[in-house]
Amino acid sequence: MNAKKYKAFPAIPIENRTWPSKRITKAPIWCSVDLRDGNQALIDPMGIETKLAFFELLVKLGFKEVEIGFPSASDTEYDFIRRLIDENRIPSDVTIQVLCQAREKLVKRTMECIKGAPSVIFHIYNSTSPAQRKYTFNKSKEEIIKIAVDGVKCIKECMKDLSEEDRKKIRLEYSPESYSMTEIDYAIEICEAVGNEWGWSKENKIIFNLPTTVECYTPNVYADSIEYFASKISHRDCVIISTHCHNDRGTGVASCELGLLAGADRVEGCLFGNGERTGNLDIVTVALNMFSEGVDPELDFSNLPDIADAYQEYTKMEINPRSPYAGGLAYTALSGGHQDAIAKGFAARAKMPEDAIWDVPYLLIDPHDIGRKYEGIIRINSQSGKGGASFILEHNYGYAIPKAMQPAIGDLIKAKSDAAQRELQPEEILKFFEEQWLGKKRPLEVLDLASTQLEGHDESEHVSTRGVVNYNGVKFSIGGKGNGPLDSFVSALAGTPVPAFNITAFHEHSVGQGSDTYAVAYVQITMEDGKSKWGVGKSSNVGKAGVAAVISALNQ
Amino acid sequence: MNAKKYKAFPAIPIENRTWPSKRITKAPIWCSVDLRDGNQALIDPMGIETKLAFFELLVKLGFKEVEIGFPSASDTEYDFIRRLIDENRIPSDVTIQVLCQAREKLVKRTMECIKGAPSVIFHIYNSTSPAQRKYTFNKSKEEIIKIAVDGVKCIKECMKDLSEEDRKKIRLEYSPESYSMTEIDYAIEICEAVGNEWGWSKENKIIFNLPTTVECYTPNVYADSIEYFASKISHRDCVIISTHCHNDRGTGVASCELGLLAGADRVEGCLFGNGERTGNLDIVTVALNMFSEGVDPELDFSNLPDIADAYQEYTKMEINPRSPYAGGLAYTALSGGHQDAIAKGFAARAKMPEDAIWDVPYLLIDPHDIGRKYEGIIRINSQSGKGGASFILEHNYGYAIPKAMQPAIGDLIKAKSDAAQRELQPEEILKFFEEQWLGKKRPLEVLDLASTQLEGHDESEHVSTRGVVNYNGVKFSIGGKGNGPLDSFVSALAGTPVPAFNITAFHEHSVGQGSDTYAVAYVQITMEDGKSKWGVGKSSNVGKAGVAAVISALNQ
Repeated sequence: MNAKKYKAFPAIPIENRTWPSKRITKAPIWCSVDLRDGNQALIDPMGIETKLAFFELLVKLGFKEVEIGFPSASDTEYDFIRRLIDENRIPSDVTIQVLCQAREKLVKRTMECIKGAPSVIFHIYNSTSPAQRKYTFNKSKEEIIKIAVDGVKCIKECMKDLSEEDRKKIRLEYSPESYSMTEIDYAIEICEAVGNEWGWSKENKIIFNLPTTVECYTPNVYADSIEYFASKISHRDCVIISTHCHNDRGTGVASCELGLLAGADRVEGCLFGNGERTGNLDIVTVALNMFSEGVDPELDFSNLPDIADAYQEYTKMEINPRSPYAGGLAYTALSGGHQDAIAKGFAARAKMPEDAIWDVPYLLIDPHDIGRKYEGIIRINSQSGKGGASFILEHNYGYAIPKAMQPAIGDLIKAKSDAAQRELQPEEILKFFEEQWLGKKRPLEVLDLASTQLEGHDESEHVSTRGVVNYNGVKFSIGGKGNGPLDSFVSALAGTPVPAFNITAFHEHSVGQGSDTYAVAYVQITMEDGKSKWGVGKSSNVGKAGVAAVISALNQ
Repeated sequence: MNAKKYKAFPAIPIENRTWPSKRITKAPIWCSVDLRDGNQALIDPMGIETKLAFFELLVKLGFKEVEIGFPSASDTEYDFIRRLIDENRIPSDVTIQVLCQAREKLVKRTMECIKGAPSVIFHIYNSTSPAQRKYTFNKSKEEIIKIAVDGVKCIKECMKDLSEEDRKKIRLEYSPESYSMTEIDYAIEICEAVGNEWGWSKENKIIFNLPTTVECYTPNVYADSIEYFASKISHRDCVIISTHCHNDRGTGVASCELGLLAGADRVEGCLFGNGERTGNLDIVTVALNMFSEGVDPELDFSNLPDIADAYQEYTKMEINPRSPYAGGLAYTALSGGHQDAIAKGFAARAKMPEDAIWDVPYLLIDPHDIGRKYEGIIRINSQSGKGGASFILEHNYGYAIPKAMQPAIGDLIKAKSDAAQRELQPEEILKFFEEQWLGKKRPLEVLDLASTQLEGHDESEHVSTRGVVNYNGVKFSIGGKGNGPLDSFVSALAGTPVPAFNITAFHEHSVGQGSDTYAVAYVQITMEDGKSKWGVGKSSNVGKAGVAAVISALNQ
C-alpha cells in the first residue's frame, strides 16, 4: 500500500492547551440528528409515521433539541414537520431544528414550514474545506464567506415579516461544513463573519457547529481545534460551541468527549451511531460513558433494550453484538477467569448496601441500570471456567451451588460443551445438572421412608428412620436413629451393602416463596478411601432434601 | 438513572505531559491476539484447522508477533501450537506468544509445548486492580506482587534446563491485568518487581503490556498513564511498552492511538475488533488510520474485502456495515450533496497525476487502495441528488452523462425511487435510464436511413441523407443535406410534421475496446417554445449514434 498518497492534517497552532487536564463533569446540550443525518444515511429512509414515532421516543428520552429535517428539499420532511406542529406534538420545552442551505427560495420555504412552532433553531451551512471550495464550488475563500453571510442576510430578511415575539423564537446555527478539513483560522474567520451579520447576543446565543464531517485526525487534534476556536472567537459568551462528530476513523465518541473537555457546550449525534458512511457519533455511548463516571447524562437510557428494539424497527439497521452498552455481547463473559471474577464480585456485592460504588470486575456498569438482565453475562462454552455454569444455575434457576462443589459442575459442563462443539444454553446446563444430580436412581433408590421424632431420648439420638431401599436391584428394609432425619438415615443404611461414608459438607437453602417454596440440599460424602463426591436433593420437605442429596451423592 | 453509584477513575498525577503535541509517524510493533483473546470471546471457538488458516492469514498480512494460545489451559490450544511448530508453519521472522498464569505446573506444561519454536514471547499476567485483589484473590498488594514475581521465578527455573541458545529465544511479557483500574503507582511497582526478578537487558527487552482490560476513562487518561509509566519505570531502554485496549466505552481505537502518542512501542489487538464483550482494539482501523495520514502501517490490507470474508468465515462474527474501512456502507453516500461533491472530486482527480495527494470529498481514503470497488460509493434512494444516478451510470456502465443532462436523469430516478419507496440497485437505474432514453419508438421511428458523402460540394452541405420514418403512425419519405450525418438528418425531417427544433448541445464518447467498441451520443434539442429535452443514442457507427440521440430526444 502506498501511503505517500496521503498526508496528515496540519497541527493546530495551540499554545498551553488545558483540555487534557479537564474532566467531563456535566451533561452537554444534546441535539439528536436522527431524523435528518441519521435518516439520510438509511438505505430505505423512514416514512412519516415512523418519524413521528421516533420523534416521540427522542422526546421521551429527554432530548430538548431535535433536528427534524430539511423541509425545503423534501416534501416528506416538509409534511412531517407540519404534522408535528399542527398536531401539537412538540412539547413547549423542546426546540426543533431545521436544516437549510443559504439560498433565498429555500429559506422562504423553510420559514413557511416552521410557522407556529414553539421554538426553532434555523441551521444553515456551507462547505468550507479546500477540496470543496475547489472541486464543488470553484470559489475563493472570500466567495465562500459571502455564501454564508448572504444566507444569514436572507434569513434576517425573511424574519422581517414576523412579529417580534415570533422572531425571538428563532435561533441561528451555522456549520462550516467539512470543518475538520478546513484551515482552522479560516473556519474562525467565516464564523466571525456569520456572527457579525447575525448579531451577537448573550440572550439568544448563536450556535457554531464544528463537524468532523470526515474524521481525519486523532481525537486530540479535534480537541485542540475546539479549544483554539473557543479562545479565538470573539464574543465567546454569545456563542454555543457544538460538536458534530463522524466516525470514519472509529474515534467519533472519543473526538466528542475530548471536544467537551476542550470547551464544547453541545453535542449533535444519533442513537447507536446511525449516520452516513461509518455513522454519526453514538449519543447513547457518550451519555452512558458519562454515567459510568458518576455524571448524570440527563438522558434516560434506563430501558436500553426497548430503545434498541425501537431504533432497529424504525431504521431497519442492526445494532452490532459488540456495540458498547447496547450490544448483545457487551456484558458477556465466556472465559473462565472473567466468569470467576464476575461471580465473586456479585457475591461480594450481595453483602453491600445497594448504593455502594459499583466495582464488579469486567462490568463497566451494572447492566440492571440500563434495563438489562444478568442472564446474558455469563455464557458457557468449552472456554468457560468452573464458576460459569454455577453462576448460571444460581442466577437463572436459584441453585446456590457451594463453592467446593462448583469444580465438579464445571467439569461436567465443560465436557458436555466440548462434545457438542458449541455454546450451551442455560436450559441445557440446567438439564445436564439435573440429570447428573437429581435424576439418578441407581444403584440406590428409596422405595419407602418415614422418620419419627423420638421424645425423652438422648439428644444425640432423637430421630428414628425406617424404610425400604433398593440397592443394586435388591430390596433392603432399613432402620436407624440419629440426631436428625439425615443422621438417622445414614445410620439406617449401615445394615445394607451400601459402602460406608461420612458426610463432610452440607449446605441447604430455600427457593421460591409461599406455598411454592422448596429446599435444596448439597451434600458432600467422603468414602473410606478418602474420595469424596457431591449430591443434590430437592424437596418441599427440608429433611427429605438432605436425604435425597445423600442418595444423589451415593449414585454418582 | 442513578449516577451516584459510579465514580470517575482518579486523574494521573502527570506534570508537563508532552503527548498531545505528538504525531504518529511510524508503525508500532503489532501483535495479533486473534487466536487467543479473540477466540476466547467467540460463542463457538475456532477448531484447529480454522486456527491454522487464521495464523497463515495473519502472517501473510505482515504480523511478526502473534499470540497463539494458552496451551496449559486447553488441549486444543496445546495441539494447535504443536502443529504450528512440528509442521514448520512459523516463519523464522515471526515470534509466537503464549499466555500462561504464574503457576509452576502451568509454566512447565507451557515450556513443553513451545519446544522447538524459533522464537517465543512467554506472556504471564495476574490481576492487580483493587476490586480483583479484594474479591477474586483476597490478597494484599504485597501478596499480589509476590504472585507476579513467583511466576517469573518459576519461568526462570524452568528455563535452567534449556541450552543457552534456546534460552535466548524466549522473551518475557508481563501484564498487570486490569491495569486500567489499577492505581498507577502500584502498577509501576509491580512491573519494577517483575523486571528486577527477570533482569533488565537492552538486547532482550521485557514487554510490559498495559491493558485497558475494562475501558473506564476517556482516552486521554490512558495516554497520561502511558506517558507517566514511561517516565517512571526504571531502565526504560530495556522495556517495550505495549498497549492492549478494549472497547467498553467505544474508544478503544482512540486509547491505542493516544497511547502511541504517549510513547507506547507496541499494540496488541484483533482484526475488526474481535474480543471479549465490546471487543479488543481493531488493528485494521488503527493501521489504516495511520495510512490515511501518510504513515506506512507495515501491515498489508490492500485486499480488505477478502480479509474481511476470511475473518467472517473463521469467527462466524459479522462485520458491521458502518465499521470503518471494512463496513459495507463505510464509503457509501446516499445524500445528494455528498454524491455531488464526490462526483466532482473524482472528475477533478481524473485529470491529476496518479500520485496526487488524495482529497476527494467525503472519502477519507481511496477505496481502491484497500481493494474496494467504487461501485458501492454512491447508492440511490429518494434522498439522493441529481449527480448520484449519473455517477452510477458512468462508473458501472460507462455512460459519461453530460453535466447539463444529469438533472433530468436525477429527476427520473428520484421519482422511481419515491414510487418504489426503497433504494434502487444499479441495474434498476440502468434499466430506467435505457427505457427512457434508448427504448422509445413513438412518436418518431426511423424505418430506413442512408447517408451519402457528397464529393466536390460546398463544405456546408457535403452529406446527403435519405430514408423513411414513421411519425405518429404515418410513414414519410425524407431527404436532406447538411455538413454531416446529423445535420443532414435534421434537415431531412423538415419535410415532415415533426416540430421544428435546434440541436443546442452534443456530446459523444466511445465505450469499450476493439471490435466491441460503440459510440454513445447525448443530444439536447430546443424547440421553438424554448423548451429543451435530452436524448441518448448508442451505435457501433459514430454517425448513427448522433441520429439515434436526436430521435430519442424527440420521443421524450
